[in-house]
Amino acid sequence: MIIVLKAKATQKEIDSVTEKIKKMGLKTHVSKGTDRTIIGAIGDEGLLKEAQLKAMPIVDKVMPIMKPYKLVSREFKKENTVIKVGDVKIGTNQVIIMAGPCAVESKEQIIESAKAIKKSGAHILRGGAFKPRTSPYSFQGMGEEGLKLLAKARDATGLPVITEVMDTAEVPIVADYADIIQVGTRNMQNFNLLRAVGKINKPVMLKRGMSATLKEFLMAAEYIMSEGNHNVILCERGIRTFCNYTRNTLDLNIVPVLKKETHLPIIVDTSHGTGRYDLVNPMSKASIACGADGLMIEMHPKPEEATSDGDQSLTPKSFSKLMGELKLITNAVGRTL
Amino acid sequence: MIIVLKAKATQKEIDSVTEKIKKMGLKTHVSKGTDRTIIGAIGDEGLLKEAQLKAMPIVDKVMPIMKPYKLVSREFKKENTVIKVGDVKIGTNQVIIMAGPCAVESKEQIIESAKAIKKSGAHILRGGAFKPRTSPYSFQGMGEEGLKLLAKARDATGLPVITEVMDTAEVPIVADYADIIQVGTRNMQNFNLLRAVGKINKPVMLKRGMSATLKEFLMAAEYIMSEGNHNVILCERGIRTFCNYTRNTLDLNIVPVLKKETHLPIIVDTSHGTGRYDLVNPMSKASIACGADGLMIEMHPKPEEATSDGDQSLTPKSFSKLMGELKLITNAVGRTL
Amino acid sequence: MIIVLKAKATQKEIDSVTEKIKKMGLKTHVSKGTDRTIIGAIGDEGLLKEAQLKAMPIVDKVMPIMKPYKLVSREFKKENTVIKVGDVKIGTNQVIIMAGPCAVESKEQIIESAKAIKKSGAHILRGGAFKPRTSPYSFQGMGEEGLKLLAKARDATGLPVITEVMDTAEVPIVADYADIIQVGTRNMQNFNLLRAVGKINKPVMLKRGMSATLKEFLMAAEYIMSEGNHNVILCERGIRTFCNYTRNTLDLNIVPVLKKETHLPIIVDTSHGTGRYDLVNPMSKASIACGADGLMIEMHPKPEEATSDGDQSLTPKSFSKLMGELKLITNAVGRTL
Amino acid sequence: MIIVLKAKATQKEIDSVTEKIKKMGLKTHVSKGTDRTIIGAIGDEGLLKEAQLKAMPIVDKVMPIMKPYKLVSREFKKENTVIKVGDVKIGTNQVIIMAGPCAVESKEQIIESAKAIKKSGAHILRGGAFKPRTSPYSFQGMGEEGLKLLAKARDATGLPVITEVMDTAEVPIVADYADIIQVGTRNMQNFNLLRAVGKINKPVMLKRGMSATLKEFLMAAEYIMSEGNHNVILCERGIRTFCNYTRNTLDLNIVPVLKKETHLPIIVDTSHGTGRYDLVNPMSKASIACGADGLMIEMHPKPEEATSDGDQSLTPKSFSKLMGELKLITNAVGRTL
Repeated sequence: MIIVLKAKATQKEIDSVTEKIKKMGLKTHVSKGTDRTIIGAIGDEGLLKEAQLKAMPIVDKVMPIMKPYKLVSREFKKENTVIKVGDVKIGTNQVIIMAGPCAVESKEQIIESAKAIKKSGAHILRGGAFKPRTSPYSFQGMGEEGLKLLAKARDATGLPVITEVMDTAEVPIVADYADIIQVGTRNMQNFNLLRAVGKINKPVMLKRGMSATLKEFLMAAEYIMSEGNHNVILCERGIRTFCNYTRNTLDLNIVPVLKKETHLPIIVDTSHGTGRYDLVNPMSKASIACGADGLMIEMHPKPEEATSDGDQSLTPKSFSKLMGELKLITNAVGRTL
Repeated sequence: MIIVLKAKATQKEIDSVTEKIKKMGLKTHVSKGTDRTIIGAIGDEGLLKEAQLKAMPIVDKVMPIMKPYKLVSREFKKENTVIKVGDVKIGTNQVIIMAGPCAVESKEQIIESAKAIKKSGAHILRGGAFKPRTSPYSFQGMGEEGLKLLAKARDATGLPVITEVMDTAEVPIVADYADIIQVGTRNMQNFNLLRAVGKINKPVMLKRGMSATLKEFLMAAEYIMSEGNHNVILCERGIRTFCNYTRNTLDLNIVPVLKKETHLPIIVDTSHGTGRYDLVNPMSKASIACGADGLMIEMHPKPEEATSDGDQSLTPKSFSKLMGELKLITNAVGRTL
Repeated sequence: MIIVLKAKATQKEIDSVTEKIKKMGLKTHVSKGTDRTIIGAIGDEGLLKEAQLKAMPIVDKVMPIMKPYKLVSREFKKENTVIKVGDVKIGTNQVIIMAGPCAVESKEQIIESAKAIKKSGAHILRGGAFKPRTSPYSFQGMGEEGLKLLAKARDATGLPVITEVMDTAEVPIVADYADIIQVGTRNMQNFNLLRAVGKINKPVMLKRGMSATLKEFLMAAEYIMSEGNHNVILCERGIRTFCNYTRNTLDLNIVPVLKKETHLPIIVDTSHGTGRYDLVNPMSKASIACGADGLMIEMHPKPEEATSDGDQSLTPKSFSKLMGELKLITNAVGRTL
Repeated sequence: MIIVLKAKATQKEIDSVTEKIKKMGLKTHVSKGTDRTIIGAIGDEGLLKEAQLKAMPIVDKVMPIMKPYKLVSREFKKENTVIKVGDVKIGTNQVIIMAGPCAVESKEQIIESAKAIKKSGAHILRGGAFKPRTSPYSFQGMGEEGLKLLAKARDATGLPVITEVMDTAEVPIVADYADIIQVGTRNMQNFNLLRAVGKINKPVMLKRGMSATLKEFLMAAEYIMSEGNHNVILCERGIRTFCNYTRNTLDLNIVPVLKKETHLPIIVDTSHGTGRYDLVNPMSKASIACGADGLMIEMHPKPEEATSDGDQSLTPKSFSKLMGELKLITNAVGRTL
């Protein structure tokens, strides 16, 4: 950690800072420049977290050198994490496709969806049973009944299922039915929920918060891993910007950055990430082209009858067409589908 | 609701849309313009929420006319909501000051804080027992022990206390000790938590999410009220923008907008909203000048020894000076402190 | 245009609005709903632009139906615009690569650059002679001398050249030397400059402003076209968001949206768009995968000796490798390179 | 400047960096920490600007210590800059109000406006003759004719006038008529224009760009001052964020930050900053409460007949009321109006 003092710091003021750092168990390295005095703190930067150096009036800037995350980092673990869900492996050379309706609505709907996506070559079935909705008056999902229908769709097709958990109290029941547990964008910094899913023995897919920085996203994954569950999948799903021609601004730049920073696999949700069904096709191709390990795509047998987010869902036909086109892209980047 | 069709819609396509609207129980009003056909849906717009009109290929745009919130709206309730907490009333002509340390750290610290803010004229004591922290390795708060210390500080000074709840499972215990329950910015769309605090009989202060729109903010309050708890206080605490000279961008524009849109009282947290102790004074004055019903301000007896957010905390001395200056501003806008 | 009145509008108030609209030469269509009265204005919406309907106290919202741009729109011209620059055609099935150093620094540097990119298969040489720099104390470019060197590099390789113009007064001299004139991101709404390049007979590449909406971007192109110059190329180069792991947030979503909205070709500048040389490769692939008609890429013979933006420039070797990989992607989306 | 190397840098790699720094004329200070080697560059940081250290593969981060601006900084000049325009002084204890219509439309309109604002106690008349408009089809201002009418309004009332210049070629004519020249938000980084107004002998008001950082804003002012014109006024006018209940997000936080960083006076344009006439009153009060040296406010004799931005203009009556209320706020912060 580097501490820049304000101009004209006296020796006494310099000492007050170095003493504080030493008390935390680090060494200091003082460098008096032409205009400013700079103090380097050598040792475990984590020990300085609570030191409140910035609250000292003589301190101008505090600049951390080390990354605040450890378990998620590529430096901690060089090789890619591969997450096994039944026969499916996430994080290998094969690109994995998760697809299905936004919400589970009925037995027919979810089984029809599962069969359609399986036929087109998708690997995992998605479907919401507990739905986070902006309005308290909107359909909130079928709850446990929805989880049971997901299990039936899995039985019917052999596809593993992923579904969202919204509250610590519901972690056990969702874990009972799901193969992968999803933590949604609005809960990315629900730290109690992160700890709770960190204690179970099921893979977790963590969606990036709408305004999460890279650091905040990785620290949220660190929360889960710090509790013992190392099977974490990251998911980019669009950020909030001034742009209003898409519901969110899908931030594909984070894909290659994450591949450098972390060993965890990266999925891109191009349906929520754009909010427009006509953009799912091109942005799914782009996601794979820049290195995503998989995609999450909304497909509904009858989008115009969906109970939520029908305007961003593909039909079975357009999904099938997309899968064919994605095959060409995965080949072009030396991967399989 | 107004539905704009794409250019060159046929009569059959127009009919497909109007029939869908009628099936939901609304009337339609078709207007064929020079270039476009526009359909007005007359009746309860809420009934159209699940209609997925945008998923119909012929539909270009869907424009709601009505606001999606009801209970929170000024149209639903004209007069200001006044929330009573002991002898303190929030939402009247008197501006209310909540102050105290970011986190409860010890009996001495919290009681000293409470006495200091009371002496300067503040009305409510703040202090975190359960702390949302970006890193799993940071101090997470004293938990129930912290709640007990807050209660002791209340006993010692008579000041009501406000503290944060982070999880549905902890609502009962926090409600046991606190006079006002705070839902933090990262939980603004933790819908289960919103429902849980909507079922208790204690005032709730809801902090705006870092990237929450006006509508999302008010809908989150609507969640709480829809469960029966109408004692909701709104709190602006800064939004996420590209600006990096403040930790967050305090968005004071929302204060007068909220005063128009809703009857609920508005508090501004100028400490988190700026993240810099040197900005708390000017931005607190500005908040009152544009109509805030109160302020939340971090004050720590020894900021440079705080366990969290020391760099945005005032000292007792600078807090006392601020209170004196705020008195002049409240007078200037015809209010009291 | 649709005008929504505030609740409880009287007949007199409704009439005041319809009269204003009629005076502008449009017809009106009044629809009284359960809660609100809505007025449709039928006719040329452009005539209402100056009507200041929103300034009338009874008006709640004004919602335009028509797009404000015409010449740039896909509705105005169905087929893709193809721009010819020497033997190069921009806007066809072939993906076009513009490459070269950020700034022209010397004869050797620019000719070496031109030869290197030509050898790797690039089509157009880029290089700045007039450089927009944040600081008045930074290198501002070689000016006319730089233009002459670009011309020499063109003579040496046959590659057309693109370079930036920063001021109306410099349009003639830049047009004298360049094959394509670039308007930079900071000048996207320099309306005098847009008009000036609209009057010349050279293709113009318009870079998106850092915080430009889709509408503002297309309206800036409309300015150029409205003066008679229809050879406009659009260029996405990253927007400003809260993200700080890239210099800008490359917004690839706009690529497929632009392909729908306009007939003009779309180029993506992945060097400025990310600001990191290690992201140029993956984001260039992604750009083509989602439909870009070309790329602009910084390549410098010796990036660590560049006078500007060396940290986002590729070396000749990494550029050559990228060109090979892009060939696979263009094939995968049915295009050529 | 501090240069952080990547983990495991060899001595040879360290030397390559220190040699490069020494070649630029600075001294180095190498500090080997537990995990990283850090190099401090001691001397004139400006000399390192073109060094492209970040383009060296072994360099991880480059962190400047010094501010990139000089002439604008409070460190360069301690006391507030006071700008004299006729009898009006900007930057003293007196808060200065600039008001008038968005655009000059006619002799009657501008003279009526000038008289109205003078009567209410405003100090400077604003009015656009050259108007930057998003659409090429909108009213672009009266041009030189508008400048002449502004001069007549000055003659009629004695109020100095401020008006915008949009292009280097128009600087002489605008300088002929105006008392203060305004550089608009879209031209904040039109560096040729900044240089041009830096060479004249008239005060310049520089509006913040829609997505300008603090540094970019101050560097733009530095451009003007570096040409010799030190009479620069800064103007906050709202930034672009995700918020859509205001046209722009007025960023008042920058006011106290600018008062610390620079000696130049700060004006807030609350009309453009919010885009809503009903927010001008509260946000004008807030601006003064947090330290602004003045305000720019749109006032139109008949807002609903304005040729531009009528929806953000006050009427003479509401402007007069505001002036009375502002008097109370200026008193409360120890200033005059």
